[in-house]
Amino acid sequence: MAGSDTIAVTAPADFHVHLRQGKFSELVTKHVRLGGFTLAYVMPPIRNAEEALLYKAQLQVIDPTVDYLMTLYLSPELTPDEIRKAAKCGIVGVKSYPRGVTTNSDGGIESYETYYPVFEAMQEVDMVLNLHGEIPSDPSNNVCVLNAEISFLPHLEKLHANFPRLRIVLEHATTRAAIECVKKLGPTVACTITAHHLAMIVDDWAGQSFHFCKPVAKFPDDRTALQEIVKQGHPRFFLGSDSAPHPPDRKSRSSPNQPCAAGVYTSPILLPLMAHLLESFGALDKLENFVSGYGRAFYKVPAHEEKVTLKRVSGKLVSNQWSLGEESVVPFYAGKDLGWEIVSDN
Amino acid sequence: MAGSDTIAVTAPADFHVHLRQGKFSELVTKHVRLGGFTLAYVMPPIRNAEEALLYKAQLQVIDPTVDYLMTLYLSPELTPDEIRKAAKCGIVGVKSYPRGVTTNSDGGIESYETYYPVFEAMQEVDMVLNLHGEIPSDPSNNVCVLNAEISFLPHLEKLHANFPRLRIVLEHATTRAAIECVKKLGPTVACTITAHHLAMIVDDWAGQSFHFCKPVAKFPDDRTALQEIVKQGHPRFFLGSDSAPHPPDRKSRSSPNQPCAAGVYTSPILLPLMAHLLESFGALDKLENFVSGYGRAFYKVPAHEEKVTLKRVSGKLVSNQWSLGEESVVPFYAGKDLGWEIVSDN
Repeated sequence: MAGSDTIAVTAPADFHVHLRQGKFSELVTKHVRLGGFTLAYVMPPIRNAEEALLYKAQLQVIDPTVDYLMTLYLSPELTPDEIRKAAKCGIVGVKSYPRGVTTNSDGGIESYETYYPVFEAMQEVDMVLNLHGEIPSDPSNNVCVLNAEISFLPHLEKLHANFPRLRIVLEHATTRAAIECVKKLGPTVACTITAHHLAMIVDDWAGQSFHFCKPVAKFPDDRTALQEIVKQGHPRFFLGSDSAPHPPDRKSRSSPNQPCAAGVYTSPILLPLMAHLLESFGALDKLENFVSGYGRAFYKVPAHEEKVTLKRVSGKLVSNQWSLGEESVVPFYAGKDLGWEIVSDN
Repeated sequence: MAGSDTIAVTAPADFHVHLRQGKFSELVTKHVRLGGFTLAYVMPPIRNAEEALLYKAQLQVIDPTVDYLMTLYLSPELTPDEIRKAAKCGIVGVKSYPRGVTTNSDGGIESYETYYPVFEAMQEVDMVLNLHGEIPSDPSNNVCVLNAEISFLPHLEKLHANFPRLRIVLEHATTRAAIECVKKLGPTVACTITAHHLAMIVDDWAGQSFHFCKPVAKFPDDRTALQEIVKQGHPRFFLGSDSAPHPPDRKSRSSPNQPCAAGVYTSPILLPLMAHLLESFGALDKLENFVSGYGRAFYKVPAHEEKVTLKRVSGKLVSNQWSLGEESVVPFYAGKDLGWEIVSDN
């Protein structure tokens, strides 16, 4: 497949995306399909099944051609009953953010134990637990954004040991240690990898706010580990873009008292970007599985028949900005040449 | 001394500062004295003795009350003869930046050997070698901004082994490894530490462009090592602020194709800031030696009699900006309370 001038990918699926609310959502939700994707696993701060269904309906109004898989936010108000209800409503997963689980502030260590009844119910109904795998920074214990992910891994291991049948996804892994840990844990534990973490190291976001995201990109060797697992075609490692739009002035500007917003925006260019990146490290033949097959298999969401075709192109630069009314957003790779574009159906 | 409400410091000396050119220099040069300092060790990109003397004269016109110690920039055009001439002109040191020494790009390893005749001459005339101690990032060898300093230390050790009588200063150390290395190397090797590296870790510059500088601030444990060596009162570790002014829009803004400028600006608040920081980790009793005595001893620049007095104050906030005509600059700690101010002589 590498070297050919077109690639047809069956039903690309982004297993981690942020689609926002209101007018901004109208702008960015359409970018899922624009970027070549037909499924969006939506990570909103949504607390119960009813809200999730309402949000899903709003997204469907904006673009009915995309499958939206919905998640709930792990918080103390989430009960085993709500889990069973959510599962019946077709909600697929529960997302845990570090701040949601920091019930024990002793040394920055998180305690998931208060959520064990919820996890028990999730295991029963076969829902997926999505983990933002970082512990909060805690300088007194030498924990900072650079080792927050590595420091989280023992919590992942413990969770898996206690709930071996619970499907768990470690989201947006950034380190060799995380890759090794997920590999070791067996078939119920998977891992998403973003486009931008396949592209960047710490140098790329140092002083460059458009490239700043959480988790931060790490050492070159960590990026190599991410690329290697993709190249190897390991079925428990698949794309979750964590595409996170922010208004341009929240990305471009800092003041002494306000940092820029964290997040890299890849949705509108996602499939061409994936082809560009995978080709750069010799993994273009893994494109379809990485952006569709492996994730769909883990999530048990079979692909429909639709194929999205990419063709080689040169000299076409990524737009510097997408806008809708007063809303706008600047993509990753703005102004650069990806070398691939989506072939229009029309 | 800790706990008292005034502190008198003899002749504060900043052994690493950037004073720029032209109009911008008029603004920032006056901030040396405003920040309580009477000596500035000036780090410009200056290539020979004549230029250095001219630049010194320009600085003296702006503020004649400060002692300016001048340095040259290590480059292939610097000869042993120029070193001997510079020494006679009172020029104190030679500054090496990584880009100046990357004559061998093999694996990002720097080769200083082409400069050995220059170092030989410097050792003869007792000039100081100031090292920006980072090797260039080289992802293929896992070198990035986070380990660029640690990767440089073998070069420092080799230089010292070859020129044991050459006084060397490792500038703006940021890691425990650098501190340990300098401690080990004995009386001809010293180390400057900035104010901002005593204050920050990586989390502080992640997404916060005003806090972005090179070398980048590292792990909490690295900051602890810097604080500990100051608290211990080790005579070969002293202040060099690396205060580096940039226009505010070069600090606050990134575009997708241009990162912000690297540098943290501390000059106008430097002595109160040092008192604030040293007090925060129980080292206020080391203030005078850290900001004056130790550096002056290493550089053989005895203190004159002038004392600068600090007093405790509360509720006085650091200015958000200093301006002169169209030039302006935003300081570190803008809008924050340092708890100390300089007592005016008037």
